[in-house]
Amino acid sequence: MTTAPMKIGILIFDGVEELDFVGPFEVFAMSNEVFERQGNTVPDEIILISQDGQPVVGAKGMKFTPDASIAEIGTLDVLLIPGGQGTRTEMVNQPLLDWVIKISAGATWVTSVCTGALLYAKAGLTRGKKVTTHWGALELLAQTDNAATVLANRRYVRDGNLVSAAGVSAGIDMALWLTGQRFTPDHARATQRAMEYDPAPPYSAEV
Amino acid sequence: MTTAPMKIGILIFDGVEELDFVGPFEVFAMSNEVFERQGNTVPDEIILISQDGQPVVGAKGMKFTPDASIAEIGTLDVLLIPGGQGTRTEMVNQPLLDWVIKISAGATWVTSVCTGALLYAKAGLTRGKKVTTHWGALELLAQTDNAATVLANRRYVRDGNLVSAAGVSAGIDMALWLTGQRFTPDHARATQRAMEYDPAPPYSAEV
Repeated sequence: MTTAPMKIGILIFDGVEELDFVGPFEVFAMSNEVFERQGNTVPDEIILISQDGQPVVGAKGMKFTPDASIAEIGTLDVLLIPGGQGTRTEMVNQPLLDWVIKISAGATWVTSVCTGALLYAKAGLTRGKKVTTHWGALELLAQTDNAATVLANRRYVRDGNLVSAAGVSAGIDMALWLTGQRFTPDHARATQRAMEYDPAPPYSAEV
Repeated sequence: MTTAPMKIGILIFDGVEELDFVGPFEVFAMSNEVFERQGNTVPDEIILISQDGQPVVGAKGMKFTPDASIAEIGTLDVLLIPGGQGTRTEMVNQPLLDWVIKISAGATWVTSVCTGALLYAKAGLTRGKKVTTHWGALELLAQTDNAATVLANRRYVRDGNLVSAAGVSAGIDMALWLTGQRFTPDHARATQRAMEYDPAPPYSAEV
């Protein structure tokens, strides 16, 4: 268990899928809260980052104001890149990819949710690695980096310090796993309980 | 199945728990997208509403810009009130409760996630009804309306047109159920699949 505070950066952009990053954000922030309630005082910093520091509009229309621009962020302990239709634009945004490459080189964990993996693939960071994405984008990911091994039907895949999650809500599972690594599995379970992550299917019986 | 477009309003406020409302928002928006992909053209409108129409800061620090103020919203088909520490302030905010009472009277569905149920309780809308909330707030809810029947260990509870979900991520389950009611259970399952809502515990084996 690492007790030094970590800097967790979440990259957001126009067309980012809302739940892709708000899910993991909630996990990391709730993990902090649970840790603090136990009398600890070393919570992690969670930073929303957009390329120019300006607000972004999500894939489904929600409007978010980030905390920083990429120019303001030189290093991160954890980088998280969410997915969404906007990745199709950002995966050919070279200045952004250059920043991703620079940050990834120094990060403890390099993570993606859904089609966020496309940016790592385009940046050459998935070569020779196992990786996953949304089930609807598995082929596109394999085409983007034909030197990567794209796995299907996994909630998340860890290869070295690269951890990629499947679609949208799978980012929550990945973030809980990461919380277990960063603190302890028990701490991750307490975080999971605090956010009551334990779904029932939509066709369950009603009262 | 109702084919007329519905107006879904999500009330946000300072101290709103981020995932409480972004989860259901994602469900409703993804439901729209799945519906549109099938060649339909009647998606629902999803509106983020703050009391004065100004941006709010969530319980964990995320900054959101709403679409409307309460003064601009006279009727809704679905009202959703999320939870978060901010509910402790809003549950004694009489102008806001008056709006909640007015909107609820005309709504098809009146819904809450987590401690959002406290606002309905304070507004007198849970009297004689079965209702749930986050496991950590069950007692507070029972104290707030001692004429309500507060149920524990349910992902969500439906009593008439009042549907209340348990903590944080349980709002996703509730929204998927509601989507099944508004469209069809099959449509809700397609929406669930599009957002890959099917968690694995954080201690699952890694690759």
